[in-house]
Amino acid sequence: MNKAQWIPIIVLRIVAMAAAFVATLLMITSHDSAKVLGMTFQAKYNNSPTLKYFVIVSIITTIYSLATLFVPPKKSRRPILVLDLIVTCFLISSFSAAVGVGQLGKQGNSHAGWLPICGQVPKFCHHVSAALIAGFVAVILYVLLLLFSLNNVLDLVAFKA
Amino acid sequence: MNKAQWIPIIVLRIVAMAAAFVATLLMITSHDSAKVLGMTFQAKYNNSPTLKYFVIVSIITTIYSLATLFVPPKKSRRPILVLDLIVTCFLISSFSAAVGVGQLGKQGNSHAGWLPICGQVPKFCHHVSAALIAGFVAVILYVLLLLFSLNNVLDLVAFKA
Repeated sequence: MNKAQWIPIIVLRIVAMAAAFVATLLMITSHDSAKVLGMTFQAKYNNSPTLKYFVIVSIITTIYSLATLFVPPKKSRRPILVLDLIVTCFLISSFSAAVGVGQLGKQGNSHAGWLPICGQVPKFCHHVSAALIAGFVAVILYVLLLLFSLNNVLDLVAFKA
Repeated sequence: MNKAQWIPIIVLRIVAMAAAFVATLLMITSHDSAKVLGMTFQAKYNNSPTLKYFVIVSIITTIYSLATLFVPPKKSRRPILVLDLIVTCFLISSFSAAVGVGQLGKQGNSHAGWLPICGQVPKFCHHVSAALIAGFVAVILYVLLLLFSLNNVLDLVAFKA
């Protein structure tokens, strides 16, 4: 792998790590409370198993991205490519599940009788939305990273064939 | 690509196509109604944008899996690998979002004041659960397909290097 192939991958990893870290921070610090019918109602990420899953995957992605920066590029192409694929799968999964639940928080579902909660806890919703944007950036960067790595590998096949 | 590499991919594609097709059928036919406070309440997949997204991606996966069966394996390794990756991303995304919303349907979220609906519309919930199981099978098969294709490509690199 030459420098022209290697540097973009390093840059993508560093930015993806930053995005995953920001997503974690924003989701963990999302917090708001509202008074409904005299009762105080707390909105936190850990009230939802889906948002907890998002935080766990974001933390793992941050640590994984940091760790792979110290792996020599030539020696471990196969395990890194497979691990990149697995991390990307979990990132997409946690992001999509959180968006699905976030959409319900924002718009509710009248058929199911679920009211939107963003009117009551706007600070919480803004934080979660920002975390989802950072999560989306991490997803896009990991997909690009995979496509770039695949392209390098396939060029090698075409070159050596 | 020799036969030992090619046949498992064809088999994985056919089974993934069947799983995506079954997931589509089960989700589209999920339907139940309940009377709550004298009002009839209809539960259908298209009451939820997330479940609609699941159906659209399942249909696309079925058609894509069918189409790729007719593509000659040697000529188009690169576009097929990239398209496989993109389809897998969308499959994981739609499955995870649907599970996130399905979990709310089953267990609700007391903090958000969202009551579970599966007690009122059990037939709908069973259908959606079955569709999610079929969707999960399609996800696993596409991830295996990707890992298998990657392995073939990397073997080629190791062999030619």
